[in-house]
Formats: sequence, structure tokens, C-alpha cells
Amino acid sequence: MTDKKLIGVDLGGTTIKFAILTAAGDIQQKWSIETNILSDGQLIIPDIIDSINHHLKMYDMKADQFSGIGLGSPGTINFKEGTIKGAFNLNWKDEVYPVRDIEAGTGIPVTIENDANVAALGERWKGAGNNADDVVFVTLGTGVGGGIIANGQLLHGANGAAGEIGHVTVDPHGFMCTCGKRGCLETIASATGIVHVARDRAGEYAGDSELKAMLDDGQDISAKDVFDLAKTGDDLALIVADYVCDSLGFALANIANSLNPKYVVIGGGVSAAGDFLLNKVEKAMRANEFATIKDSTEVRLASLGNGAGVIGAASLIK
Amino acid sequence: MTDKKLIGVDLGGTTIKFAILTAAGDIQQKWSIETNILSDGQLIIPDIIDSINHHLKMYDMKADQFSGIGLGSPGTINFKEGTIKGAFNLNWKDEVYPVRDIEAGTGIPVTIENDANVAALGERWKGAGNNADDVVFVTLGTGVGGGIIANGQLLHGANGAAGEIGHVTVDPHGFMCTCGKRGCLETIASATGIVHVARDRAGEYAGDSELKAMLDDGQDISAKDVFDLAKTGDDLALIVADYVCDSLGFALANIANSLNPKYVVIGGGVSAAGDFLLNKVEKAMRANEFATIKDSTEVRLASLGNGAGVIGAASLIK
Repeated sequence: MTDKKLIGVDLGGTTIKFAILTAAGDIQQKWSIETNILSDGQLIIPDIIDSINHHLKMYDMKADQFSGIGLGSPGTINFKEGTIKGAFNLNWKDEVYPVRDIEAGTGIPVTIENDANVAALGERWKGAGNNADDVVFVTLGTGVGGGIIANGQLLHGANGAAGEIGHVTVDPHGFMCTCGKRGCLETIASATGIVHVARDRAGEYAGDSELKAMLDDGQDISAKDVFDLAKTGDDLALIVADYVCDSLGFALANIANSLNPKYVVIGGGVSAAGDFLLNKVEKAMRANEFATIKDSTEVRLASLGNGAGVIGAASLIK
Repeated sequence: MTDKKLIGVDLGGTTIKFAILTAAGDIQQKWSIETNILSDGQLIIPDIIDSINHHLKMYDMKADQFSGIGLGSPGTINFKEGTIKGAFNLNWKDEVYPVRDIEAGTGIPVTIENDANVAALGERWKGAGNNADDVVFVTLGTGVGGGIIANGQLLHGANGAAGEIGHVTVDPHGFMCTCGKRGCLETIASATGIVHVARDRAGEYAGDSELKAMLDDGQDISAKDVFDLAKTGDDLALIVADYVCDSLGFALANIANSLNPKYVVIGGGVSAAGDFLLNKVEKAMRANEFATIKDSTEVRLASLGNGAGVIGAASLIK
């Protein structure tokens, strides 16, 4: 192992997170800047370059002390060309050239990967994945994303879509998804999906429930509200939480039945519901797994939170 | 690439198939012997050794002309120890030592793998998988098995169960499977599963159908009968074929949604139903896949038939 250091960059729609790490993955410095999506996002890559150069100067470090920069980004990555397109939350309408531009701007080699895969790599390396060779990561946020590590390698598949667990079909007759088909996991287990399920179930619910009262009152509710109320025993909230966790457990069980990972790791904002969510998902997984999987695949909550991205991005360099 | 040759051995419950191949995977010689499962299967490994040595002598070849022997076998493989246990159709009740014993008996290094994985490797290398880096193989026989190649590597998972597609849950309220849970793909899309579905549907069918008449008459029917009758337009047989293909398509679509393979390859005896089956499965897959997968993952029938095993076994040596 080299003693050169790594830089991890996690590019999101609101902030860009940076970290300097040892080759062993220990964070030595970290900082973040706001993502400036004005002017079609044209300032983003220059901002990344300036921020890295500024901090290296501040820490009295030189480019040749680093073995590389790993960048996690939204959008569709072209690995051969080192380009990204279709990152709509960054206002990138045309293809951008982060590898070419950041290498030229910093003098350090750059590797890119999509944001969900980078979070998967981070949780695998330094988080709940325990550096195992076979880890499936699912992130429950505004949407549902994921990443799959098998035989120690991140999977991309034929066209870069491996690990896009959010579009596994759970119910062929379910809600319409933005992807154009029905019943995707994302329509049920994302933050927006959970609210959708709650509104749907509330329409046919006649019992006593604070969640029902809030919805009837026209209040905005969040996925967090649903799980918080479910924990207090709210009847409708429990119906929703059970359906969400059963659906997630069904989808994850079948991925586990196919891949037999050592760990299935659940992250993203919705996973803040903690052991309450984990226990329900695990129960649903066990009901749909065959014996070898029950015995050898473990489901866990992610442990790195927002830090997974920079660590996973840095791991691209190893 | 070396110019040494490969030996592939496909050990089944009825026959043991052998082939001598070039390093490029072209079969130069092939033969088979009956599997002798008497005496707790203790004669099987000696028979394999004798048959290899006999044929090398016959072809005037020496052990050092081979880079290895690949063996595909039923049962649970211990890769570290080179042992196999639980191959009940071979009457192997205790652990056996094929790597140790065949190496000692032939002077050629031996690598072992389970039979479904070996068929997957064969179809990937020289069959419908077109030597792509990402191939999912499913075999529809007495049971349903499979193998997954991702990033060019066969996946084993944490405990060797990766690729056991037969136990993906299709219907949590469906038929009980031998594995102990309900609604496994194997209970629907295996040869025995198809007959089970036909008997189940016949019980609630009141229309005009030759399949119904055969079942009511107490005749034994096979999966082949069901598909042959469906092709002639038999109403009940079509209901069964549609359910089988919809279930298989649902399961394969979700594996494709997760892994984005280049090819999904369908083999095994049931796949003899050909394009009739393929077209129905493809339609069901497309209905459950998101856009990138529809565009980049192709489903195909296996092309090597019984030959996949020896070719895949030989490929273990590459």
C-alpha cells in the first residue's frame, strides 16, 4: 500500500463535500461548499478545482502527495470518456468533462462514479459493509438508489445500470413510477413513495389515527412523520410502515436470493427510522429467503451517514 | 494464451460427460460413461480417473499436455478444501475429495464448481452468452437452477448460493417449495412446477381443453405436453403457459433490473419449448423492466444444449 493520500469528492445538488484521506481510508481533513447550479451548472467544476487547490495550499500539501481524486456525481457516467450527462439537479444539460478538467486544474488523476455507487463503496469499505467482498447497498431518499459489490468489485452491468434497485418491480399493478412502469420499489419505499402510500391508504381508512387526522386536515406530512407515528402505535401509520417494509423486504430478499451477499445495507434519509424499520424489513426478508441466505446474508443499517460519499469516492483510487 | 489443452467433466446423476478442448474452447474429443451410483457412489471418482487415463492413452496424450481438469458436479462445493457434500442424486452421503483424488489419479490439476454454474459458464463462453462480461443463466429442468457472471467473473456470494435463481420468491402466497418457503420460481417454472400449475388450474377450469381432458382421464402429463398443447391453442394449456412465462419473466426482469446483464440466457429441458416460450417470457420481462434495461439487456435461449457443462467445466481452467 502506498503512503500517498486520497481525495474524495461527493457532488450533490445542495453541497459538495470534500475529504482528504489516508490510503487506509481514515479521514484527515474534511470540508464542504455550496453547489452553485446557476449558469447551467458551469461553475461547479471550476469551484471543485479552486476548493481543492485552496485547501492543499492551506494544508501545505502538493499534488504529488496524492494518488488520486475520486468523484461521486449524479447523472449518467461515461466511464471510457470520463464524462457525465443528464445530471438534471445540477442543471447540467450538456455533457461535462470532470476527469479532463479537474486533472488539468489540480494535476491529480481523477476517477468518477455515480453517487449511489460511491455511497455503496463507502459503506462497504468503512461502514456497515465491513469490507466484505459481497455487499448490496440500498439508499432510501427522495428516490431509491443502490449499488452492488460482488467478488469485491462494484458492478456496472452492460450499460451502467447495475445496482439501480429502485426500479425493481414489487407490484406489477402498483403505483405508476416516473420511469414509466408500475410498482417500482421507489414508488413505495422512497420518502415520496411513503407519503404516497400514506395518502392512498388514508382514503380507505375509517379508524382512529393521528396520521389520518393530519392528512384529512390538509397538513403536509413526511416519511419521518409516518415512521414517528408508527412507533407510537398509530394504527394507519403502522399499516403504511408494514406495507413499506414488507415491500422493501420482498425486493431485498430476492436480490439476496440471487446474489447471496454477506451484507445488505440500508441507508438514506428514511433509514433514520432505525431499528424499528430494520426489524420489520428483516422479518419480511426472512419470510422470502431460502435457508442458505437466511443463514449467511445479514441486513444492517448504514453507519456512515453523509460521510459515505467522500469515503466511497476516495476508495475509487485504491 | 497457452497451447495446452483442457479437460471438461460434467458429472450428472445418469451420465458423466467428458471433453478434451483447446485453450480457445474448441472441443476436440468427447465421450461419456454411465454414472454408477451403487455403493454410496464410491465408484464415481475412480471411474472418472480411469476414463480420463484410458482416453489419454488411446489418444496418445500425456498429463503435461493439459493445463487442467474442470469438474462440474451436483452438491455443495467447498472451494477452499476442494470437497463436495450433499450430492444426493449421486448417493454421496459423506464428503468426497475429487480435487485430491483426481489430481493424484491423473497427475493433472483439478478445479471444481457446481453443475448449474458450470452450465452458465459454458453458455457464456461458447453459447448464447457471446462471451460477454455480464450474463445471467437460468436452467429450467426438474428444478430451476442458475449462474450469474458479472464483471467477467462467476459469482459465488457469501456462502456459495449466488445464482440459485430457483428460490427467488415470485408469489409469497404461492405453492410450498421443497426449500420450505412459498412461491419460489422453481414451484412454477420447473418441469415439475409446470405440471403442478396445470393440475392446480385444471381443478378450477370448466372450458374445452385437451389438457383438461388428459388430466381428468388420469393421464401422466409432462411440461412438454403443456407447451405442445399451448402451441396448438389449447385454452387451459395457454393459461398455464402464460402464468409460467409471466412468473419467469417477472423474476428474470427483477434480476435484470438489479444487475443489467448483457444477456439473460434460458436453458434446461423446458427451454426446448423454444421461441414460443421465449417470446412470452420476453414480453413479461419488458413489462417489468425500466428503460435502460429494456434497451441493453437481451433475453435468449441457450444454444449449447447438453454440451454446456463440459465446456463450462473446461473454462474453469482458463
